[in-house]
Amino acid sequence: MIVVLKANPDPEQLDNLTTWLTSQFITIHSSLGINNLVLGLVGDTSVLDIDLIKSLDIVEDVKRIREPYKNANRKFHPDDLIVDVGGARIGGGHFMICAGPCSIETEEQMNAVACGVRDGGATLLRGGAFKPRTSPYSFQGLGGNGIELLIKAKKAAGLPVVTEIMEISQLQYFDDVDMIQVGARNMQNFQLLKELGYVDKPVLLKRGLANTIEELLMSAEYIMAGGNENVVLCERGIRTFETATRNTLDISAIPVLKKKTHLPVMVDPSHASGIADMVKPLALAATVAGADGLMIEVHNDPPRALCDGAQSLTPEKFADVARAVLAVRPYAMTAEELSQ
Amino acid sequence: MIVVLKANPDPEQLDNLTTWLTSQFITIHSSLGINNLVLGLVGDTSVLDIDLIKSLDIVEDVKRIREPYKNANRKFHPDDLIVDVGGARIGGGHFMICAGPCSIETEEQMNAVACGVRDGGATLLRGGAFKPRTSPYSFQGLGGNGIELLIKAKKAAGLPVVTEIMEISQLQYFDDVDMIQVGARNMQNFQLLKELGYVDKPVLLKRGLANTIEELLMSAEYIMAGGNENVVLCERGIRTFETATRNTLDISAIPVLKKKTHLPVMVDPSHASGIADMVKPLALAATVAGADGLMIEVHNDPPRALCDGAQSLTPEKFADVARAVLAVRPYAMTAEELSQ
Amino acid sequence: MIVVLKANPDPEQLDNLTTWLTSQFITIHSSLGINNLVLGLVGDTSVLDIDLIKSLDIVEDVKRIREPYKNANRKFHPDDLIVDVGGARIGGGHFMICAGPCSIETEEQMNAVACGVRDGGATLLRGGAFKPRTSPYSFQGLGGNGIELLIKAKKAAGLPVVTEIMEISQLQYFDDVDMIQVGARNMQNFQLLKELGYVDKPVLLKRGLANTIEELLMSAEYIMAGGNENVVLCERGIRTFETATRNTLDISAIPVLKKKTHLPVMVDPSHASGIADMVKPLALAATVAGADGLMIEVHNDPPRALCDGAQSLTPEKFADVARAVLAVRPYAMTAEELSQ
Amino acid sequence: MIVVLKANPDPEQLDNLTTWLTSQFITIHSSLGINNLVLGLVGDTSVLDIDLIKSLDIVEDVKRIREPYKNANRKFHPDDLIVDVGGARIGGGHFMICAGPCSIETEEQMNAVACGVRDGGATLLRGGAFKPRTSPYSFQGLGGNGIELLIKAKKAAGLPVVTEIMEISQLQYFDDVDMIQVGARNMQNFQLLKELGYVDKPVLLKRGLANTIEELLMSAEYIMAGGNENVVLCERGIRTFETATRNTLDISAIPVLKKKTHLPVMVDPSHASGIADMVKPLALAATVAGADGLMIEVHNDPPRALCDGAQSLTPEKFADVARAVLAVRPYAMTAEELSQ
Repeated sequence: MIVVLKANPDPEQLDNLTTWLTSQFITIHSSLGINNLVLGLVGDTSVLDIDLIKSLDIVEDVKRIREPYKNANRKFHPDDLIVDVGGARIGGGHFMICAGPCSIETEEQMNAVACGVRDGGATLLRGGAFKPRTSPYSFQGLGGNGIELLIKAKKAAGLPVVTEIMEISQLQYFDDVDMIQVGARNMQNFQLLKELGYVDKPVLLKRGLANTIEELLMSAEYIMAGGNENVVLCERGIRTFETATRNTLDISAIPVLKKKTHLPVMVDPSHASGIADMVKPLALAATVAGADGLMIEVHNDPPRALCDGAQSLTPEKFADVARAVLAVRPYAMTAEELSQ
Repeated sequence: MIVVLKANPDPEQLDNLTTWLTSQFITIHSSLGINNLVLGLVGDTSVLDIDLIKSLDIVEDVKRIREPYKNANRKFHPDDLIVDVGGARIGGGHFMICAGPCSIETEEQMNAVACGVRDGGATLLRGGAFKPRTSPYSFQGLGGNGIELLIKAKKAAGLPVVTEIMEISQLQYFDDVDMIQVGARNMQNFQLLKELGYVDKPVLLKRGLANTIEELLMSAEYIMAGGNENVVLCERGIRTFETATRNTLDISAIPVLKKKTHLPVMVDPSHASGIADMVKPLALAATVAGADGLMIEVHNDPPRALCDGAQSLTPEKFADVARAVLAVRPYAMTAEELSQ
Repeated sequence: MIVVLKANPDPEQLDNLTTWLTSQFITIHSSLGINNLVLGLVGDTSVLDIDLIKSLDIVEDVKRIREPYKNANRKFHPDDLIVDVGGARIGGGHFMICAGPCSIETEEQMNAVACGVRDGGATLLRGGAFKPRTSPYSFQGLGGNGIELLIKAKKAAGLPVVTEIMEISQLQYFDDVDMIQVGARNMQNFQLLKELGYVDKPVLLKRGLANTIEELLMSAEYIMAGGNENVVLCERGIRTFETATRNTLDISAIPVLKKKTHLPVMVDPSHASGIADMVKPLALAATVAGADGLMIEVHNDPPRALCDGAQSLTPEKFADVARAVLAVRPYAMTAEELSQ
Repeated sequence: MIVVLKANPDPEQLDNLTTWLTSQFITIHSSLGINNLVLGLVGDTSVLDIDLIKSLDIVEDVKRIREPYKNANRKFHPDDLIVDVGGARIGGGHFMICAGPCSIETEEQMNAVACGVRDGGATLLRGGAFKPRTSPYSFQGLGGNGIELLIKAKKAAGLPVVTEIMEISQLQYFDDVDMIQVGARNMQNFQLLKELGYVDKPVLLKRGLANTIEELLMSAEYIMAGGNENVVLCERGIRTFETATRNTLDISAIPVLKKKTHLPVMVDPSHASGIADMVKPLALAATVAGADGLMIEVHNDPPRALCDGAQSLTPEKFADVARAVLAVRPYAMTAEELSQ
């Protein structure tokens, strides 16, 4: 960490600062610029509060050099993490295709979609039971009953399942769920993240609409700090000024993440675009750029889906996307290339 | 709502659509463009799922004309809402200044700050007990013990208090709290919003970093739909490409909100900028633009604050800001002017 | 175009509006909502000034349904445009790889890079003579002398060339240049665009950092309205809140553009990321998503390049990228698939 | 400037770097972190190309500490600049209100608006002759003839005038114009900026929609480096995800700029919001936050204006805004307070 002091800092305050830093086991290297004294702090600076130091009267600016995350940092974990989700694997060369409907509606629908996506190439089944909707007047999901239907579909199709949690108290319904999804709007629901640090199930952590890649890694760090190291990250589009697509898929996040972390990285082309026709080009792009997996919305009757119909594929179209994705996989960037 | 159909729509699908819309008590006016049939939907379109209609094969585009919120809509509630927070009022010409530390630390600190801000002009005391921090290694707040200290300071200074909730289970600690704050990161924590709809306390709802004004109103709608109509909105800066300030205060949100809703609007210049020196100019700007209140971070020893010290004022500087704010109040835009 | 009127519009003003619209050869279909009269305007609404109509006292809102561009609209030009750049083709199934240094420095450098990129698979040579630099103290390019060096390299390597124009008066230097590039910062330099409408050379139009896809098409429309229909569009990253990459490559712009326009679409992964290591994953992603070409910065000695060294590849690394790109081309989305 | 080296840097490359830096009259202070060597560069680092250093194999990251602008830097020019525009002054306590129509249309219109805004409190008349419009089919302005009408209005009303230049060759029409405006879309038209550095007239430089405050200062630096020090900056809204207003007025830019530079700062509330009703609250906000002037669109018949009618005020409404602005001026932040 670099601390740039204002010109002519008060000696007593400077002494207070250096004494405090030393008490935090930080070594200080100082160099004198033309106008400013610059302190180089060496040691475990992840424990220092950058805003606190910035607020001191004698400090002009503070710049961080080390990443503030440790458990999620590839520097300390050079080997790819492989996450096992009820038998399906992701990371370290294992590619995962997760598919299913936005909302769980009926047993027939779920079973039909589950078998459809399994036959089309999916290795993990998704389905929403607790639904975060912008409007209180939109369909809010079937809740615990929805998870029951998802578990039935899991058995019917022989696929492991992932579904979203919105609140700690819902954990009681997740016993037979193989992977817990934290949605974009909850990426910084820190209480929920902490709780999931104590759970013995892999977590799929989606990037928030306005969260940086570093913040995504810090949220993974929240989970991992509790002991649960099986975190899979998911890029699903960020909010920008462009309105032609619902969000802007940040394709660069894939190589950036693969370099910074050993955690597997998925991409959700359905939510990123909000348009069914764009799922295939974005899925192909994410795959060759080095993603470890994809999450795709599939519905057996998209025009009648209760939510997000605009971005859902039929099982037939999904199978076409999955085929195309698997065909380009041999040409995709590897984690080894991206993490050099 | 306007539905633009593709050229030569399938007659059966068109018939299905119009039959379904009619069953939802929607009247349809259609007009033929050069290439496209355009349907004008009349009735309570807030119940229609815009994404669902967009996903139909025969539909090219859907445009909403009516706002999707009702309880928060000034059209249906022309008179300003006045919210009473333990005796302090906001809205309908009542101006509220809320002040206090980012984090509650000790009894001495809280009592000192509480009396300091009261003497400086504050009518509501704030203090954080549950703290959302980006890093799991940063100070997370004193929790329930912090709220106890806040209640002691409430008594010591004779001011009502507001503090942030992060999770439903924390509600047990809020019995003596006068107003519950929902932070920016939880603006779309819909489970929490629903729960607060059943609580008999006013709610301070902060705008998310990447949330539109309409989404803020929809989140207020979640609370109000449950029966709790005492919602105060708070603009606290949005995330943009500019990095000179921590966030970009969207000053235009004040006149936009005053036109669209009857709910009171506060502004938090401390979080918006992240810089103590900028609190005064932004506080003055928000006041004359028509805000109903301000939320300002104050600390009796900013450089030693455990978090967000960079944006905190001393009680003396706060008093100077409050004096300046009250001096420009007579020149501020009124709700009447802004809602015409 | 849909015009939503305020409740109880003044009859005289409404009469004025409808009379004026009719005089513009617009047919009006009106339907009455619960509270508002809605006018559907049919005819060539691209000539109507949407802001002018919005400003009328009786108007609440105006929504455009037709795209405001014609020459660049695929609806009126269903077949892909193929642009010939000195023998190299792009569009309609022809893939173009453009490569070369950010700045033209010396004859030796240009000739070496030109032959290097030709051998590596480039079909078009680029090199900057007029350089838009944020700081007046940074290297500003060799200007006319630089273009002379570029023409020498063109002859040495037998490749057509493209270079950027910053100002109309520079056109005198472009006689032997095969394609004129308009940089991101000049995408809305309308005087320059108009002038290029009268030039008999293809134009490479780069998207501005904060410009929407529709604005990019409107800028192409400026050139095409003058008679020059040979416009190639280039996505090169947009400005967002994310700072891990210099810009955010909007990969979705490829399928969106291929659907909306018949113009070829290139992608510049070097400027989008600003990081040499990210050029390969982004180039692969753009290719499979359906781009018609790539623009890649190559330098024979990146660490000594006078500008943008951080994003340049060596000719050897470029050849590796080009090989990988051509290997995935057979699996890429086609214009036919994307324009359905 | 701080240069963070990778672990175990190649000694020869490190030697090359330090030799080159020393040849640029830079002194190097180095300190050893746990894993990385950190170089502190002292001297005139504004001449160093940050991207070039970043691109070196041995370098992990580079962080700038000094601002890259000098002429526009308040550190080197502590006193406020006062700019005289044909007798009207701005800066150093002088407040300027500039008003007039978006587009110059007819002599009658211009003379009427000119006298109207003079009587309402304007000290500078604006009017657009060369108009940057997104669509080639929109009205493009009267050009040179428009400037003639503006000069007539200048004489009729006795007010100095400002108008926008879009291209160097238009300078021939600016002889009798008192101030030259560079529009947001041309903020990084560096050729134009350089040319204006040699002109003996004050320049009004508007911030680009997606440009940072630092980039705005760098563009001012382009003009000032040529010798023209009379530059006035103008905040006019930036592009964000929010669509309720046309742009988002970055009110924080006022205090940030007043601290960083001695140049006067204006605000354009008309373009920032795009809505006439929002001009007054934003004008008041900008004034109290410390702006040195305002730029307001006024039209004598807004609903019939040829462009931007939605954001124009009538002369009567303008007079009301000007009155309100002058009433709050005594309560506004001063440059002295903001630059401490």
